Amino acid sequence: MYGHQRAGLFPSNFPQFLASGDGALIRDVDGREFVDFLLGYGPMVLGYQNRVVEEAAQRQRELADCQNAPSARMVELAELMVDMVDHAQWAYFAKNGTDATTTALTIARAATGRAKILVERASYHGAAPWCTPGTAGISAADRANIRYFDYNDLPSLRAAFDEADDDLAGVIITPFKHNDGVDQELIDPAFARELRATCDRKGAVLILDDVRCGMRLEMGSSWANLDVQPDLSVWGKAISNGYPVSAILGRDSLRDAAATIFSTGTFWFAAVPMAAAIATIQELRAIDGVRLQRRAGDRLRAGLVAQAQAHGFDVSYTGPSQMPYLRFHDDPEHQLSFAFSAAALDNGVYLHPRHNWFVSTAHTDAVIDRALEGTDRAFATLAAKS
Amino acid sequence: MYGHQRAGLFPSNFPQFLASGDGALIRDVDGREFVDFLLGYGPMVLGYQNRVVEEAAQRQRELADCQNAPSARMVELAELMVDMVDHAQWAYFAKNGTDATTTALTIARAATGRAKILVERASYHGAAPWCTPGTAGISAADRANIRYFDYNDLPSLRAAFDEADDDLAGVIITPFKHNDGVDQELIDPAFARELRATCDRKGAVLILDDVRCGMRLEMGSSWANLDVQPDLSVWGKAISNGYPVSAILGRDSLRDAAATIFSTGTFWFAAVPMAAAIATIQELRAIDGVRLQRRAGDRLRAGLVAQAQAHGFDVSYTGPSQMPYLRFHDDPEHQLSFAFSAAALDNGVYLHPRHNWFVSTAHTDAVIDRALEGTDRAFATLAAKS
Repeated sequence: MYGHQRAGLFPSNFPQFLASGDGALIRDVDGREFVDFLLGYGPMVLGYQNRVVEEAAQRQRELADCQNAPSARMVELAELMVDMVDHAQWAYFAKNGTDATTTALTIARAATGRAKILVERASYHGAAPWCTPGTAGISAADRANIRYFDYNDLPSLRAAFDEADDDLAGVIITPFKHNDGVDQELIDPAFARELRATCDRKGAVLILDDVRCGMRLEMGSSWANLDVQPDLSVWGKAISNGYPVSAILGRDSLRDAAATIFSTGTFWFAAVPMAAAIATIQELRAIDGVRLQRRAGDRLRAGLVAQAQAHGFDVSYTGPSQMPYLRFHDDPEHQLSFAFSAAALDNGVYLHPRHNWFVSTAHTDAVIDRALEGTDRAFATLAAKS
Repeated sequence: MYGHQRAGLFPSNFPQFLASGDGALIRDVDGREFVDFLLGYGPMVLGYQNRVVEEAAQRQRELADCQNAPSARMVELAELMVDMVDHAQWAYFAKNGTDATTTALTIARAATGRAKILVERASYHGAAPWCTPGTAGISAADRANIRYFDYNDLPSLRAAFDEADDDLAGVIITPFKHNDGVDQELIDPAFARELRATCDRKGAVLILDDVRCGMRLEMGSSWANLDVQPDLSVWGKAISNGYPVSAILGRDSLRDAAATIFSTGTFWFAAVPMAAAIATIQELRAIDGVRLQRRAGDRLRAGLVAQAQAHGFDVSYTGPSQMPYLRFHDDPEHQLSFAFSAAALDNGVYLHPRHNWFVSTAHTDAVIDRALEGTDRAFATLAAKS
C-alpha cells in the first residue's frame, strides 16, 4: 500500500481495507463499525450515501459521465461557484486537489512570466514533485523555483519575498495552518494583509489553497470574512461529497492567463462528479451545512476537552471546531496520540493520530454522544496505562 | 473552455457540450446524434452505458466509493492486472494518465537515484509541467531533466542517451507512435531492442506509456507480442470504461522503490472506478474485446480507404485498425482534415481532425456501415468543394 491511505501510518489496529459507509458511520472488511471523523480525508461533508447527492449523480449517470466534451453541468457548477465566491469571476475544473494546485501555479506563472512560487514550509498542497512531503524520487529541479516561509511569521515571509526578488510569480497558502502533527493556527490578519500588499506591489498572484477547508468554514471561501482576498482559490474534497472533482476559481484579471495554459486530463470534464458537486453545494446551503458542522464540532470539542481534563491529560484542541486537531502535551513523538487513536478505534471511533479531523452534517448530537462514549473509554484506557 | 475538450480546437460545427451517450452513439445538447469515434478520448472501450460495467459500479456504489482506506476491490484489480501482464508483479493505482506517468518517473528516479528521463519529442504523456504540449506557465526547471529523441530513430536515441550520461533514470515511450496530426507508426523491433539493451546497460528504467493503447491491441500490454518488455507500464482510459482510475504496473525489482515514494490523491483509492475496471477487464476477456475492436476497425478502414480513392483523395490510413488515423496528403495545415471532420459531423459521424480515432466493442457492423454512409457523403462534399 502507498500514499496517505497506507495502514502503516496508523496504529496497528487500524484497518487497511474498508467495506462500506452510511451517514457518519463506516465499516471495515472485518465487520467492525466506527463513527468516522476522517471522512475520506475530508470529502464526505454530508456523510456517506447522502441521498440528495446520490440521486443527482444517478440522474446524470443515466445520461453520460466521461465524454468527448463536457456536459452542461460544467456551466451550471461554474456559475454556482462564481456566484458564491466574491473574489471569483471564472472557474476551471480538474480532478484531485494536486491537479488544481499545480494548475494554479501554472496560471500564476503564465500571468506573470515569472517562475518563483512561495510556499509555507510544512503545508500540504498535494503530492506532485513540487510539493509532495516525500523526498524519494524528487530531484532538485522539481523545487528549483519554490521558496519557503513559515505560517504567520512575517520575517520569514519577507525573506522569501526577497529571495524570489523579481522572479516572483505567486504565493500559495492554506486558509489557516493545518499542518500535520502540530497545533493548528488561524491566520493572523496582519500577516494576511502584508502578504496581500506585497503581492500587489510585486505584481504576484496570491493563491488560497482551500482544498481541505472549502465549504467547511464559510461557503464563499474560508477567507470570506477576512479583509484580504486571493487572486485564485483552489477547491476540492468537500465540494462534491466524495465524487472526484476539484476547481480553481479566479479573478477576471487572470482569465486570459488561464486560457493560455494547457492543463487537462481525460476524466477532468466528467459530468457525474459535477452533478454531485452542484447537489452538494445546494444541499449545504439549504440545510446551512456550515452551521451544522460547527454545531457537531463544538459538541465534540466540549466533550473531548472535558474528558481529557477528567482523565488528567494536558491537551491542545486547536483549529475551527469543524476541523479540529487534538495534541497531547509532552508528546513530541506522538506516542500518546497513537495510543489514544488506537484505544478510540477499539471503542468504535475513527480518529487520525496526526492529521486534523473532520465532522459532517450527518454527525448529529446522538452520533457525537456515541463517539464521546468511545473516547471516554479510550482516555480511561490511556490513563490506566500511564 | 480549456484543455483538450475546448471546441476551439475543432471545426466550428463541433459541439462544445454533450448531453448523453449509448453504445457507440452520442448526442449533443442541441439533440444532434453522432456515431462516435473518439470515445471520451479513449476510455469507452465497451461503449457508453455498458450494462455489465454500470451494474458492477452500482453494486460497489451502494457500499462505498471514497473512503479513508481502499476497498477490497483494489486487491482484486491489482491481482487481475498482474495476472494478465507478464512483466508486472505489482500494481499502483492513480486517477488520470498524467498522475500515473508522473508517478512512474518518480519511481524510476527513486530506484536509480538519478534524475534524467528520455522522452520522445512529440509524444503525449499527459499535461503536467514536465510533459504538457503547452508552453505557457512552464519554466525551464520543469523540463531541466528531460532529454528528447525521435520515435524509431536510433541516432537520436543514442544522442539522448549520451546527453543523459550517468544521470539517466529512465526512458518513457508509447507502444507505437500516435502523435497528433502525423502518420502513426508501429514500433521498429530493432529500435525497441536497442532501447531495452541500453537501458539494461545503464541501469535505467524502461517505462511503457500504455495509457492510450492499453486493452486495445492486446490485453497483456501493447508490447505483449514483442520480444522487448518494459520495467514499468502505465495504464488508464480503456481499463475502466470511463470511470476515473489509472495504474502503474511494475517488475518486482522496482517494488521497493515504488514503496519509498509519496504520490497520492484524495480520490485515487476510490472503490467504484476499481469495481468498474474489474468488470471492464473481465468483460473484454469474456467477449474477446480486442478481436471485436479489430473487426470494427478493419471494416472502417476498408470502407474509408475505398471511399477516399473513389472520391479522388490521396490519404494515409495508419496505425492499428482499433486506433486509426486518416491523413490527407498535401495537407500540411490540416485544412482538408478539418473540412472532412466538419462534413462528417454534419453527416452524423464524430471524427477528430488531428487526434487518432478509437472504436469500441459496441461498434457493430451495422454501426460501422451507418458511419460509412455518413463519411461517403462527407467525402462527396469535400470533392465538390475541391
